[in-house]
Amino acid sequence: MKQFFILSISIFTLFSYAQKNDKNLLKYVKPIIGTQRMGHVYPGATAPFGMVQLSPDTDTIPYSVNGKYNPDVYKYCAGYQYDDKTIVGFSHTHFSGTGHSDLGDFLIMPTTGKLQLNPGIASNPSTGFRSAFSHDNETAQAGYYKVKLDDHNITAELTATNRVGFHQYTFPKSDEAHIILDLMSGIYNYPEKNVWTYVRVVSDTLITGYRQTNGWAKNRVQYFALTFSKPFISYGSKNFEEKQVYRGFWGKFNQNKNFPEISGKQIRLHFDFKTDDQEKIKVKLALSPVSMRGAVQNLITEAPYWDFETIKKQTQDLWESELQKVEIEGNTELKENFYTAMYHSFLAPTTYMDLDGKYKGLDQEIHQAEGFTNYTTFSLWDTYRALHPLFNLLQPKRNNDMVHSMLQHYNQSAQKMLPIWSHYANDNWCMSGYHSVSVIADAVLKNVYTGDPLKALEACVNTANKRNYEGIGDYIDKGYIPAEKSGISVSNTLEYAYDDWAIAQLAKKLNKQTLYEQFLKRSGNWKNNFDKSIGFMRPKLADGTFKKEFDILSTHGQGFIEGNSWNYSFFVPQDPSALIAAMGGEKKFIKKLDQLFAMDLPDSFFADTEDITRDGIIGGYVHGNEPAHHVAYLYNWTKQPWKTQEQVRKILKMQYKPTPDGLGGNDDCGQMSAWYIFSSLGFYPVAPGSNQYAIGSPSVEKAKLHLENGKTFEIEVHNQSDKNIYVKKMLLNGKPLQDFFISHDTIVNGGKLSIEMSATY
Amino acid sequence: MKQFFILSISIFTLFSYAQKNDKNLLKYVKPIIGTQRMGHVYPGATAPFGMVQLSPDTDTIPYSVNGKYNPDVYKYCAGYQYDDKTIVGFSHTHFSGTGHSDLGDFLIMPTTGKLQLNPGIASNPSTGFRSAFSHDNETAQAGYYKVKLDDHNITAELTATNRVGFHQYTFPKSDEAHIILDLMSGIYNYPEKNVWTYVRVVSDTLITGYRQTNGWAKNRVQYFALTFSKPFISYGSKNFEEKQVYRGFWGKFNQNKNFPEISGKQIRLHFDFKTDDQEKIKVKLALSPVSMRGAVQNLITEAPYWDFETIKKQTQDLWESELQKVEIEGNTELKENFYTAMYHSFLAPTTYMDLDGKYKGLDQEIHQAEGFTNYTTFSLWDTYRALHPLFNLLQPKRNNDMVHSMLQHYNQSAQKMLPIWSHYANDNWCMSGYHSVSVIADAVLKNVYTGDPLKALEACVNTANKRNYEGIGDYIDKGYIPAEKSGISVSNTLEYAYDDWAIAQLAKKLNKQTLYEQFLKRSGNWKNNFDKSIGFMRPKLADGTFKKEFDILSTHGQGFIEGNSWNYSFFVPQDPSALIAAMGGEKKFIKKLDQLFAMDLPDSFFADTEDITRDGIIGGYVHGNEPAHHVAYLYNWTKQPWKTQEQVRKILKMQYKPTPDGLGGNDDCGQMSAWYIFSSLGFYPVAPGSNQYAIGSPSVEKAKLHLENGKTFEIEVHNQSDKNIYVKKMLLNGKPLQDFFISHDTIVNGGKLSIEMSATY
Repeated sequence: MKQFFILSISIFTLFSYAQKNDKNLLKYVKPIIGTQRMGHVYPGATAPFGMVQLSPDTDTIPYSVNGKYNPDVYKYCAGYQYDDKTIVGFSHTHFSGTGHSDLGDFLIMPTTGKLQLNPGIASNPSTGFRSAFSHDNETAQAGYYKVKLDDHNITAELTATNRVGFHQYTFPKSDEAHIILDLMSGIYNYPEKNVWTYVRVVSDTLITGYRQTNGWAKNRVQYFALTFSKPFISYGSKNFEEKQVYRGFWGKFNQNKNFPEISGKQIRLHFDFKTDDQEKIKVKLALSPVSMRGAVQNLITEAPYWDFETIKKQTQDLWESELQKVEIEGNTELKENFYTAMYHSFLAPTTYMDLDGKYKGLDQEIHQAEGFTNYTTFSLWDTYRALHPLFNLLQPKRNNDMVHSMLQHYNQSAQKMLPIWSHYANDNWCMSGYHSVSVIADAVLKNVYTGDPLKALEACVNTANKRNYEGIGDYIDKGYIPAEKSGISVSNTLEYAYDDWAIAQLAKKLNKQTLYEQFLKRSGNWKNNFDKSIGFMRPKLADGTFKKEFDILSTHGQGFIEGNSWNYSFFVPQDPSALIAAMGGEKKFIKKLDQLFAMDLPDSFFADTEDITRDGIIGGYVHGNEPAHHVAYLYNWTKQPWKTQEQVRKILKMQYKPTPDGLGGNDDCGQMSAWYIFSSLGFYPVAPGSNQYAIGSPSVEKAKLHLENGKTFEIEVHNQSDKNIYVKKMLLNGKPLQDFFISHDTIVNGGKLSIEMSATY
Repeated sequence: MKQFFILSISIFTLFSYAQKNDKNLLKYVKPIIGTQRMGHVYPGATAPFGMVQLSPDTDTIPYSVNGKYNPDVYKYCAGYQYDDKTIVGFSHTHFSGTGHSDLGDFLIMPTTGKLQLNPGIASNPSTGFRSAFSHDNETAQAGYYKVKLDDHNITAELTATNRVGFHQYTFPKSDEAHIILDLMSGIYNYPEKNVWTYVRVVSDTLITGYRQTNGWAKNRVQYFALTFSKPFISYGSKNFEEKQVYRGFWGKFNQNKNFPEISGKQIRLHFDFKTDDQEKIKVKLALSPVSMRGAVQNLITEAPYWDFETIKKQTQDLWESELQKVEIEGNTELKENFYTAMYHSFLAPTTYMDLDGKYKGLDQEIHQAEGFTNYTTFSLWDTYRALHPLFNLLQPKRNNDMVHSMLQHYNQSAQKMLPIWSHYANDNWCMSGYHSVSVIADAVLKNVYTGDPLKALEACVNTANKRNYEGIGDYIDKGYIPAEKSGISVSNTLEYAYDDWAIAQLAKKLNKQTLYEQFLKRSGNWKNNFDKSIGFMRPKLADGTFKKEFDILSTHGQGFIEGNSWNYSFFVPQDPSALIAAMGGEKKFIKKLDQLFAMDLPDSFFADTEDITRDGIIGGYVHGNEPAHHVAYLYNWTKQPWKTQEQVRKILKMQYKPTPDGLGGNDDCGQMSAWYIFSSLGFYPVAPGSNQYAIGSPSVEKAKLHLENGKTFEIEVHNQSDKNIYVKKMLLNGKPLQDFFISHDTIVNGGKLSIEMSATY
């Protein structure tokens, strides 16, 4: 970490004054940010929204030990922890920033010396194929990663196209050079997770296969095609499965050595080479959700040549043009935070479709995408809040495709439901709410979705009426979920109510008056969990009374998920004014909000609450968990919007730093980063589904949004400084803004917002 | 069994004199023949060469108990044993007559009363969903099966199209009627065999899914689509897997009841109905090697209506027209044996392709069959001998497609080898030799194969030169396989030598002189294992000396498989004259052959040899194992062909009876039956790849072969009787035959063979 600071200081020295019209924004992206502690991002190489996330795994901790959940696994949601001293290998799929996990497919490790087919232990990497490494010898850029593997004296470089991971290994002279392909390894792994793996050695440079897993995605198959730049001399495999009852007549071949068809549940392979000093062996591995043949097509079409630098440049150029969508001015620290946030925001959802448009649907059948790119990895409880709204601004074409993907999910799902938390043709139904409806409503209302909006509405309504899912039946009948029936009854009721409001907005836009009224009524259901006597959201029992034993600071068993009543009590983004009224009027509301940001939490809170450290919170405000993300902006609905400005600036400062431990919580597929982007630009979508952004306090000096419609929206901040955090005056296209809100239409029509900052409010 | 005899006697009474131009041959087919003891055939419903073999399973014995092979499993290769008293259910895939097994997919069982999701035990069927049954209430016909399930008071009827199994269940009045769909059940099952199963309840009448297994076929996926004639009221499932570590967030739904997407390794489902008295609930289940969608297409296209009788008639008409290919005259017992043999010969290879021509290849990719029907289930060590030659005569179109399928197998296999024992896009490499080459050569030489013969030759040559397979490298280098290196060194050398002769014939036909000479030379390799000093085939060590400890009566550890030296010493079908010379001339040869048929075997022999009982042999001749199948015909190469006639008649009589225990050994995918058909017609293909059939002793009175080329070949036997077993005179199209051989061309050109029998030679 020391080294990292030296590096960042040197960059600071070189670039301490930002250049105007900066044509190299890529340099501000530091994928290493958030790799320490709980950011759960990966430092490896990927293309924007790419299918491949080729990244080093520093450990492969099992999900369970002796049948019991192993809490240490949580650190390895993205496979990499900055404090680790060894690398096990480079695998091709990683979630960015999640708080539960899966993936880690097809781990590859180059080695020298005696063949070792076990990874060995971190405290003594020589016990296996893993290797010690040092951050001194590590470079992580958007689309490029490099590290020296000390134990093997190999320099590993990684880049990736959308569907192809490209490895370049510089070997020493060796008669015993190996490349390990580990099909056992995976993230959130346990012995039974690999349902089946299959490998076919097609030639001495082409390998194909698949990995089928039963994990967070229950029915998941990932196909691959791998090619070496140099023919191997020999190869072999070992099946580590403890119990292999049935051997059939396969003894007809020696199947461990040079046998071209290998299948089983616990397999590692090795490919053997002789290398000259500084000889580069390159490996390309393409993925496909469809078939090995699809992976081969992706491989030869997307990465047809062996020139590592060309592929790297291609991908980095793609990143550069994504980053150029927002040009900002500010100091290097700000730019590093900002462009790394842009980078993290543009990682997921991920492409889930072959180049020919084929993909696997929720029905486990192969489909042909007609007129859209199919995406997966929808962490919607997180990303409906700011990430998809950000896409509506900066990635409308992609967000349109994402909505198409979500509606295909709906069509194909056995439950006839929109995605909850969906990845790789599966839904894991993680977290609460049915927030697809927010993403869809927002995309339709902002004219981003080009498909049939009536069909989109139908999918939203049917999902919201899925009575046998997580208390929806009770919610419809009673207006709340009885606490006896669900451990997260309050979170769900509050989130369903917001989602219902989004559906109402969509229905209204489509002139479906009855549906509008029905869902608008449902959107008031938050009131049923609001206990006026204490002024907080509170679980309600089936008999209509509030649950007696109740701790507003606690999460577990209190009816909430990833947040206590203190945080969730402010969760009425669809109607802050009504919440203010319910809480006894503006004065009491402000007082309560002030208290949230100022309170002193007992130690018990930290033991009880997920993803939280004392650094990660401001008073009782927990930025690391999403339910709080709109809360700082609620002052805008009162006469004290300067308190929004104060808190937003505090959060920007405290929760985002350009260091490995710089993220205050899981990045959650870009939601944390999207919050940063909006907030540093000066506005935030409190209630997606509305056209309205709440103004906060911009931290940039200037920003230029280059929109897909060809228009530009400029934000010019005057008197910007760490002290001048208050918005004194705002001019939109030269005319004063009357309140602390700005509409989406205003921005996409292009123009300029001038904001004058001040040290006083 | 008593009942069965009464039934067969009554048929005998009714039809004791055969009718001329019999238009109902179907009635002679008795699928129950061979279901007792070691025939390993199934009594259920199937179409000719059909993908679906819908048949009752009387037990589901595990392949292994506590990790150890369970020898009892062997009885259940086809799922059904005649002596059993209960039926577990009806599954959709069965091998016919194999001596190792797999399959048993998608077991369905209708029940009444309290739901039971365990099969229960045979001695007390009320402990589970299984049911007692009686052969009194059982009917088995070609394409139709019926049984009364006593415990549930349900009559079950089965029929099938090529790809669809059709169940018709007649229920009593019941408020608790169930249909169980058991995805755990299977043949040669063990806990780890189910790699994954998946079910999707699409509607209240349509279910789709798949079963993926790691068994004799290592990478096998069978897809299905099932439809009910009546909507179920409710449904549910139970996962019986002992260890289900990872549960994810799936608790959001109650997944045991009415949850439409079920997956795991050990799953049983139930569908619940209410029934009136005598109400019929029908079930159609289609298979697909490609996808659930493919299965749905097969279902709705091949069996679009609910009329059980129509589908049954359609399939039985297909069988009738297959049987009509050979019209014979003779008594009822003969006809029952003959047409049941025809039926058993036309079960495998099985169709392995969707109606749209898509199938799964050996490379685990989906392929489109261009201009041929893709087949699987190639038990080639058995079937190259007589079954494929029979197809060249009676099913040339299908055999052409089978050769196409085998060549696609070659193209797609990772090993670039022709099939050895291949089923469901896998090769299990069971048994010895590479007998695909015999089938291919025979089909090319008999002008049956319409594809590129040069490519066919290439595939044969490459397979025969696969040095790392089962001793081929040594065989090529030394001309034999050293006994130290293989437990079946002699069998393999002898069979390779025959196969090489077949390749030589193919090369000769294609004017590839060098290859011809090379493989003709290899075809003499049998001599290297012939020990002149004892006059028997004998394992040879790497140093060129014969193995010292050697027992000519024993199979195991002596270099043979399914046969001892006594039987294998006659395995030079490609050159009997050379064998005769090697054995010291005709006199000694005849003496040895006489001795084989007359010898008295010690008890130790029966303990040591597979598939053998004292009933199953004649002297030391073991008809139940294939290596002997040509042996009785070898007298034709001497001056005592009457001994062939004698032995053939004896085998026909002793080894084939129209009773449940009527087959002398495993039917082996039709090979035993094909031997019967040829032999009862009076000739046999001793060396497929030659045009020549050896004449035996016909047991029919008359036979008319209706060939696909429109021609007819008649066999007219005069003075036929159980005593008149000797061929006195033969006229081919009115001209006397000069020797005891007849050519294939002669037959396919049409005409008449008149044979005059006599009680003396």
